[in-house]
Amino acid sequence: MADLDLKFLGFDVFGTVVDWRSGVSRDVQAFSLKHKLDIDSLKFADDWRGLYQPAMETVRSGKRPFVKLEVLNRENLIKVMHSYGIDPGRFHNDEIDHLNRTWERLDPWPDSIEGIKRLRSKFAVGPLSNGHIAGMMNLARYAGLTWDVIGGAELSQSFKPLPETYLKTIDAVGAAAKSTAMVAAHNADLLAARSVGMRTVFVRRTSEYGEGQTQDLEPSEDWDVVADSLMEVADALGC
Amino acid sequence: MADLDLKFLGFDVFGTVVDWRSGVSRDVQAFSLKHKLDIDSLKFADDWRGLYQPAMETVRSGKRPFVKLEVLNRENLIKVMHSYGIDPGRFHNDEIDHLNRTWERLDPWPDSIEGIKRLRSKFAVGPLSNGHIAGMMNLARYAGLTWDVIGGAELSQSFKPLPETYLKTIDAVGAAAKSTAMVAAHNADLLAARSVGMRTVFVRRTSEYGEGQTQDLEPSEDWDVVADSLMEVADALGC
Repeated sequence: MADLDLKFLGFDVFGTVVDWRSGVSRDVQAFSLKHKLDIDSLKFADDWRGLYQPAMETVRSGKRPFVKLEVLNRENLIKVMHSYGIDPGRFHNDEIDHLNRTWERLDPWPDSIEGIKRLRSKFAVGPLSNGHIAGMMNLARYAGLTWDVIGGAELSQSFKPLPETYLKTIDAVGAAAKSTAMVAAHNADLLAARSVGMRTVFVRRTSEYGEGQTQDLEPSEDWDVVADSLMEVADALGC
Repeated sequence: MADLDLKFLGFDVFGTVVDWRSGVSRDVQAFSLKHKLDIDSLKFADDWRGLYQPAMETVRSGKRPFVKLEVLNRENLIKVMHSYGIDPGRFHNDEIDHLNRTWERLDPWPDSIEGIKRLRSKFAVGPLSNGHIAGMMNLARYAGLTWDVIGGAELSQSFKPLPETYLKTIDAVGAAAKSTAMVAAHNADLLAARSVGMRTVFVRRTSEYGEGQTQDLEPSEDWDVVADSLMEVADALGC
């Protein structure tokens, strides 16, 4: 893989670098216990995450202007609460905000910190995520990750998989598209990255959605690198 | 100072964190030797830097749209060459580009790496500089600095000391202005930061412009912190 001549690696974060399902359900569980609610916290996390793409689609389609992911997450949290028969009005805004920031308190997969550290020794690295800048910054500090830059949605004022999310990040890091790679556990993300000329690195995260996961278990295309962990990516890229 | 309740520190970089004059003159000297030019490299560095504010002013005033600092730096390099009777047409574009990227190969002041490391243990840290994102990223990697985020000119599409450069960075890091501080060796920068509600940290860099430096030798106002190094700033902020 040494002949890829890469300068920058952009990372999908939710699911690829951190385990959102365990982290979100942990905080939902704590909230639930505190307020004596009867919630299946894993299902609640899945349902919350399930509103993620439809919410971004309202922005991608032009129905509403760009907003930071935390705004969409909060609106979705309120919706999920209602769908569980919970009145959000029962809680202080601060408590809702705190629960919403669960997306900034997610644990990295076991290989993420060391894998990214090794990759960073050779390449500039940064989120190329739909997360907003403050969220990515706070999450990295929580999880012990070190990035060189934060690219993605807020910088480009657009959500993946629209081409501009990738293109504006590539422009910001000053590299040619072919000297950058997208690192993701999601085939659709890599398909969009390849379409703008980026290299592609697929990382299998077969438990992102729990034991019953059915999507993204295998690469759908001949991605440039296919690996089971970020340590394996570092091996493949000669770090 | 513990009662400042800070969350984010934005850093001026050129002059405050890194020693641009030594670094630029070193690369001008190398260029000069290679091409058998007769140049006073320190004077050349000063002259190049001297065109920095006027060039940004053309953008701040609205005369031209925002461009990344590397564009202004390159235009200014060509101007300075002409003023020294050097025909830039003699050199390959790659060589000019390489010399222009001297602004990404600057050494940190002796206290910068450890000072910022200590400050980062308690606060999120990032450039709030007129440098562009790739330039800040490459410089940090060259100098061994670790940031949490890159704020400043490119993110805000404006140059300091316009208020929006500070305000958009504060918005991006998700903090209230009063929970952020500007760290700079330049009084004008702190004046602008204070005017939008940021806290202010003045670091004396009395040799930024060499032995004959006449500006910014002392604080011009009652800044929240005044220090002689970033280590002293870390002391003052309880890191």
